[in-house]
Amino acid sequence: MATRVRTASGTLKSALHHTHPRPTLRAFGRSSVRPTSSSSSTSKPRQPTKVARSAPIGLLVGGSVLASAIAITQLTGSDDSHHHIEEQSQNAPIKDDRDPSLPRYRLSTIRQHDAHSPEPWVTSSDKVYNITSWVSAHPGGDIILRAAGKSIDPYWEIFSIHKQPHVREILDQYLIGYIDVADLGPDGRPKMEEVEDPFEGDPKRDERLVTLTAKPRNAETPTGEVAREFITERGVFYVRNHMWVPQVDERTADDTHVLTVELPDGEERRYTLRELKTKFPSHRVTAVLQCSGNRRSDMTRQVGHTNGLQWGVGAISNAEWEGVRLADVLADAGLKVASYPSLTQTSPPPSDPQIPDPNTLHIHFHGLEAYSASIPLPKALSPSEDVLLAYGMNGGPLPRDHGFPLRAIVPGTVAARSVKWLSKIRVADEEATSQWQRRDYKCFGPNEGANPDWERAVAIQEMPVTSAVTGVWVGSDVKRVPWMGEKRLLATEEKGEGKKNEGEVALQGYAYSGGGRAIARVDISLDGGNTWDQAELVDDCAGGKCKGSKAWAWTRWRYCGTLPSPPTTRTISSASPSSSAPIQALEDGAEAQNGTEKKIGEKDACTELIVKATDTSYNSQPETHAGIYNVRGNLATAWHRLRVCPKCLQNSTCNSNKNIWSDGAVVYGCGFSREDEKKEER
Amino acid sequence: MATRVRTASGTLKSALHHTHPRPTLRAFGRSSVRPTSSSSSTSKPRQPTKVARSAPIGLLVGGSVLASAIAITQLTGSDDSHHHIEEQSQNAPIKDDRDPSLPRYRLSTIRQHDAHSPEPWVTSSDKVYNITSWVSAHPGGDIILRAAGKSIDPYWEIFSIHKQPHVREILDQYLIGYIDVADLGPDGRPKMEEVEDPFEGDPKRDERLVTLTAKPRNAETPTGEVAREFITERGVFYVRNHMWVPQVDERTADDTHVLTVELPDGEERRYTLRELKTKFPSHRVTAVLQCSGNRRSDMTRQVGHTNGLQWGVGAISNAEWEGVRLADVLADAGLKVASYPSLTQTSPPPSDPQIPDPNTLHIHFHGLEAYSASIPLPKALSPSEDVLLAYGMNGGPLPRDHGFPLRAIVPGTVAARSVKWLSKIRVADEEATSQWQRRDYKCFGPNEGANPDWERAVAIQEMPVTSAVTGVWVGSDVKRVPWMGEKRLLATEEKGEGKKNEGEVALQGYAYSGGGRAIARVDISLDGGNTWDQAELVDDCAGGKCKGSKAWAWTRWRYCGTLPSPPTTRTISSASPSSSAPIQALEDGAEAQNGTEKKIGEKDACTELIVKATDTSYNSQPETHAGIYNVRGNLATAWHRLRVCPKCLQNSTCNSNKNIWSDGAVVYGCGFSREDEKKEER
Repeated sequence: MATRVRTASGTLKSALHHTHPRPTLRAFGRSSVRPTSSSSSTSKPRQPTKVARSAPIGLLVGGSVLASAIAITQLTGSDDSHHHIEEQSQNAPIKDDRDPSLPRYRLSTIRQHDAHSPEPWVTSSDKVYNITSWVSAHPGGDIILRAAGKSIDPYWEIFSIHKQPHVREILDQYLIGYIDVADLGPDGRPKMEEVEDPFEGDPKRDERLVTLTAKPRNAETPTGEVAREFITERGVFYVRNHMWVPQVDERTADDTHVLTVELPDGEERRYTLRELKTKFPSHRVTAVLQCSGNRRSDMTRQVGHTNGLQWGVGAISNAEWEGVRLADVLADAGLKVASYPSLTQTSPPPSDPQIPDPNTLHIHFHGLEAYSASIPLPKALSPSEDVLLAYGMNGGPLPRDHGFPLRAIVPGTVAARSVKWLSKIRVADEEATSQWQRRDYKCFGPNEGANPDWERAVAIQEMPVTSAVTGVWVGSDVKRVPWMGEKRLLATEEKGEGKKNEGEVALQGYAYSGGGRAIARVDISLDGGNTWDQAELVDDCAGGKCKGSKAWAWTRWRYCGTLPSPPTTRTISSASPSSSAPIQALEDGAEAQNGTEKKIGEKDACTELIVKATDTSYNSQPETHAGIYNVRGNLATAWHRLRVCPKCLQNSTCNSNKNIWSDGAVVYGCGFSREDEKKEER
Repeated sequence: MATRVRTASGTLKSALHHTHPRPTLRAFGRSSVRPTSSSSSTSKPRQPTKVARSAPIGLLVGGSVLASAIAITQLTGSDDSHHHIEEQSQNAPIKDDRDPSLPRYRLSTIRQHDAHSPEPWVTSSDKVYNITSWVSAHPGGDIILRAAGKSIDPYWEIFSIHKQPHVREILDQYLIGYIDVADLGPDGRPKMEEVEDPFEGDPKRDERLVTLTAKPRNAETPTGEVAREFITERGVFYVRNHMWVPQVDERTADDTHVLTVELPDGEERRYTLRELKTKFPSHRVTAVLQCSGNRRSDMTRQVGHTNGLQWGVGAISNAEWEGVRLADVLADAGLKVASYPSLTQTSPPPSDPQIPDPNTLHIHFHGLEAYSASIPLPKALSPSEDVLLAYGMNGGPLPRDHGFPLRAIVPGTVAARSVKWLSKIRVADEEATSQWQRRDYKCFGPNEGANPDWERAVAIQEMPVTSAVTGVWVGSDVKRVPWMGEKRLLATEEKGEGKKNEGEVALQGYAYSGGGRAIARVDISLDGGNTWDQAELVDDCAGGKCKGSKAWAWTRWRYCGTLPSPPTTRTISSASPSSSAPIQALEDGAEAQNGTEKKIGEKDACTELIVKATDTSYNSQPETHAGIYNVRGNLATAWHRLRVCPKCLQNSTCNSNKNIWSDGAVVYGCGFSREDEKKEER
């Protein structure tokens, strides 16, 4: 049975600096385990209790305060509603011109709706929210209860991940009233409490990382560094944290950090980190980790609003991980499941009903900071799936941002399953998974809207095939391409004719597919999809440099070509079968109508570069994000499209006769130029 | 080392009726094994020997025959060329107005270029072809040598698979000259030999099958039967044969049919069918088989010419297979390979250099009729991959068309690997695979053209995700939908308002992905991709009805909805981001231009239905076939699009005011209506 954890109020520092392993989940602050209640995560989110909407009719008339006015309650619930009638302060110093149809609440009442209440409330500015039905859906889990009975604002100041419009929209759905004017200061706001910063102990970050949110830390590899090397340097490996970075003392971790393994029958087995390291053989696996939201900003730009961090092409990195095999640990802990051959046998041998079908179980990983996620048990048990409990990265120990002292590494699977700061493993059915997983890391149909059917949707495990351009050189910049020496300036030589290298382009990037499926082919188009050529796949795995039973690493690719000559006129057909016009990517696309000839200005001389990959199962990327659009913006894997424009676009003195692809061409697209400039700490 | 088999001429019947197992490959006719020669399949196809092009200049002047004329040789080779100067018959009775730049050959010369010649030739009509460099690329393998030194025409009459335009195009590339007029009959053609029909012994076929070629038999399940039931009835299971159906005596097969297993060191182990059945436990697996060319006709119609059989949506079927596990047989035969954990171990235990990495090996399956194909060894060995050597299908023995007495079943993999009439298994590297596999069952980049790079391309193994509509009911036909009883006419009831069921539509079909990946979602659009809804997935696997460790079966789906109201006018925007206009599918699409309002006639009132599936790895189908186009037309897995048009389209007396979706609406698309009508025996 899943137990439900709620955060009780408590001193923050002691919890944050508490590094001893515990067998229970912990959230922000000191944890206490409570039995499943009526607001349990396993039951349907209950309807908000019918709250009377008290409208202070008559309170304000023509802007003047009526002394002794009593709010008249308007009941919006049915006959079992109960009334909240707040006493109106008689000497409210400020004008209350807020929506008169909603009730006012005193802070003393609000404080009663704390983490222990069956009906937790929060405030923001002068507004009051009943978050009861939201708690189980909160992507951050029960940590939201830290603010119950109080203002959520200081927490949002710290948890900067909330500084996105859709987060405010969600909160607004739970508005039930306003803070009584008697409890507001002269500025119309209640006094804000000081809240200690749980991120105070987070490690210093490499300055090259592109930060999306600081608290929790979410930062992507700068575009130019993505797949520049086969193994991503520890400092620029992208960071995706759901909360703060737990602090574990490096000097004592081997003996103080404990992994608890809970079997389906409830039996537990504990291993210190030292036991794991010494009892089991160590293994190395070269594997990509990729966020489900990698390239989300592409989907947003092409289709529309998506919830979540607007990652570019850099929420993916590749490393060599070292650790022990999860299957070895599970076997040692005494896990027994039916073998696969017995599942298909015509006359199966008599089986022990206590031994379950592995297909019915998941492995649940729990981190020290209260995040958790699960994978199907067959993935964990298969000798060729290479699932590790890792304590090393790129030849050194795990960095704190990447899970020190222990993390799961689930190759080929969305990185959300490679849980960091691993303290517990449970073997249980999938339904026992955390709310993190029931309300996140899923995709939906394009028309499911803002409130998709989370129960029907399938959890993201193996990743689909994707690719991206991470480096573009145009014109004379091509000679600066690091690998151009190896290519012996092929593109230039082939052209000959002394034309220098106008129009030359060099590209590099990555392609990756989940499930250990290798990349079969990377196709490049320099003309918006009219014609295609194949990129060179870099053989990074030669000489046994990739550890693993399957293709868990990315495939880097390179391409040299010549941009199409910029037309002075061009015919744009609305029904061109092969053009596959990009969606909203061509910002000047509105001019591209009707099958007539049209004088094309400098602006129109841009071309669109496309990369798309095919894996060895011959799955390929969708042409656009329209068909895979989902409100969470997960798995944005459509063809990666970039616009390349001549430099004179940016140079008003440019002679239009020299409208050629030249040095310093401007590249637009996810992770490039304008986008990069916008990426400042939010 | 691969040995190369050539077919010597010999009595046909004795070979066809020979049912005893042999350890060597056999082709059409009696086989003989020859050592690798200079025309070995492992070396590059050699250039055709430089043949002098003898032009009979002066032979014909103004249409009159010059007696004693000697062909004057024009040398096209370099100085080491040798001359073929044919003596000109002095009493040729017919006019020779054929291309004078090409030489003439006597039949006596042609006959020397037989199957034993290093330079085999064939004739067709009065033309002579040097097929030396084609033999190794011939999709049918060495069987082509049966015609060497002779006319290929009677063979093509029998092997009806050659009756496709691209086959003639290929042959034309090898034209070297003409048969001398002295050897032609009064009709300008040589006398054609009688050739016995190797397909004489093929089994009778179910009349419901839609035949694409009779010899070899290639026939698809009729659209209405595809996925009508979860398990495809034996009689309508699609048939894909590369040659004739070997004849094995049912009464004695258990003892006479032998499977030979050849290990990497050359050691062989043999099992009679009876030994297989009694020595190893039997297993059942419910698995789809799907041709790599399923839905190829869709790709052809959307993009253009593709080589190969133009399958509709019915080159896929689902059955329950019974047999023994290949892994069990390989273990018994003594195969040893390195275990997976050792591949990742940091300090691997000392290993025997004789024990290979399984990732470097393939399992090669050889059929009795000379077809062969391979799969990666890890697929064969993994307990959860369920690869069988099957002798049963749907509770009975294998039908002859499906591999009696023994076939490989490789779930989740292109059906070309589930080799029928299995007689031999070899464990060897992938390069040792047959020409069948080196020159077929691969995909290419969209612009690779008619002569793609076969060596660079990756062989098709696991199938990508696909789906198709196989049943459409419109208007009052909806009440005839077999499962509508279960649905309690939901669609009709929901509408109410006594509007009958104008515009109602019911759809059914299948979705399938390879590699054991289940189907996560099936999306339906009734308006050409503007809006989407989800189909109901049929739970055919409830109660353990699907045998297997992974999702090897297809997922059937159903959908009820209402067609969009036919517009009298509509605005067509050329830049509509969500419309994803179908390519060439809207035959009247040429009218769909410019963002202006336009009076829409009856013809335009058609709508486009789309189905697309997403698998549990969140791979989805491409929007169109443009980006996955390949000249072989393999893996045509784009969104399946159908047009539905009002009945009055077909009825000239139809009142245009009644331009509604009504009974008997016409459905166009792969496998439907017009297409079906065209499907006659070719």
